[in-house]
Amino acid sequence: MPADAKLDRLRVVLVASRNPLNIGAAARAMGNFGFSNLRVVNPYDVAFREARSAVGASAILAKAEEYKSVVEAVGDCTLVVGTTAGRRRQLRHLLRPLAPGARIIRKRLGSSSVALLFGSEKRGLSAHDLSHCHWLMHIPTCEGHLSMNLGQAVALCLYELVRAAKWPSADNLTFANAGEIERITKALLEALRLSGYEKPNAAAATELKIRGLVRRLCLQSADADVWLGILRQFLWKMKS
Amino acid sequence: MPADAKLDRLRVVLVASRNPLNIGAAARAMGNFGFSNLRVVNPYDVAFREARSAVGASAILAKAEEYKSVVEAVGDCTLVVGTTAGRRRQLRHLLRPLAPGARIIRKRLGSSSVALLFGSEKRGLSAHDLSHCHWLMHIPTCEGHLSMNLGQAVALCLYELVRAAKWPSADNLTFANAGEIERITKALLEALRLSGYEKPNAAAATELKIRGLVRRLCLQSADADVWLGILRQFLWKMKS
Repeated sequence: MPADAKLDRLRVVLVASRNPLNIGAAARAMGNFGFSNLRVVNPYDVAFREARSAVGASAILAKAEEYKSVVEAVGDCTLVVGTTAGRRRQLRHLLRPLAPGARIIRKRLGSSSVALLFGSEKRGLSAHDLSHCHWLMHIPTCEGHLSMNLGQAVALCLYELVRAAKWPSADNLTFANAGEIERITKALLEALRLSGYEKPNAAAATELKIRGLVRRLCLQSADADVWLGILRQFLWKMKS
Repeated sequence: MPADAKLDRLRVVLVASRNPLNIGAAARAMGNFGFSNLRVVNPYDVAFREARSAVGASAILAKAEEYKSVVEAVGDCTLVVGTTAGRRRQLRHLLRPLAPGARIIRKRLGSSSVALLFGSEKRGLSAHDLSHCHWLMHIPTCEGHLSMNLGQAVALCLYELVRAAKWPSADNLTFANAGEIERITKALLEALRLSGYEKPNAAAATELKIRGLVRRLCLQSADADVWLGILRQFLWKMKS
């Protein structure tokens, strides 16, 4: 996946994160999916320092920007989206599931900056944090298991944001052609005769059965030669 | 999202995981997305015990099944999919991106069990682990940031599996499970040894190659017995 100027317009904003491992995991996921702009609001100081100094801490973490408040952290954004696990909200925010929400964010990133806010591990975003959001986004999870791990939630949101960029979908498989399959069938039939598998007077029935059996294998072209080599070795051994 | 019988057919298999936090994170993501069957192969004992006893450890973790080997852990599955970060593979496995790969897994879950394998944090799945896989799946990530955090990778795969609300209708084929496929592999390997196909000192390499070769066949359950019968006949003849 090539780096994308649009992705640089996303600000991943971690508000009051408490666990250095989660801050590190968020930064790692950003690297995985081509994002670069990490902002932390009021992090637990020790956590932030620990995350930055961890072995393998990324360039993303090194240049993460620290803010005292949400309002400062989202100042350059035309769209501010909060993430939430809960279904009940104090504020009358529009709540969008991840997939359609990500589509809207992606569109906006084409022209201007967007902030995506994640709250603390324990309490999520506060009512005050939420008051800065245009709308909220949630990852559809199961009743009784609504709340996700912070690092996993960040990874899922970023994945969904780049998901629709064209994925290759076609298998690059080359299947064996009928000629190759027939050579294998013939070698197998000869081995069956030699080994006594084929009942006398049942040659025609066996042949039909074996023909179907071989064709139900989804034989790849590169493998066809290998199978033919194996069968020829068996034939050689049975004849010797 | 309601619980779904199909989701119970997925076996999330963690191979040689070293970090209790990652085992816990995998279990938590399973709960988030409605999956329940967690299997661990050869976990670092302390890590597994710690994860199980962690505050808030889930019912999923409590009933996680422990196995000594991959072959045992995937025995009841008709499709075994390995996850990988790398692009270069020693073995000739088909590599599918997450989205199309998940579609295929979802389809298979409509009729039978599927194993999804995750390797250790440091090394991923070994060549031997991979030899039990029908194909591999990778999460499309950026050059230079290919490797994902284990807990995040599990979460993304499970999210993608439930992402499309509508599940495609089940295949009306019954595929051979890993146990049946392994019996065929073993018989084939014996025949290769007897026939002199296998070069001396190359037993391990041959085994990996053959394991992949058999798994690339889309063996149906009804045919598996026939192939086993054929191989046994060949063995009998070569020994006589």
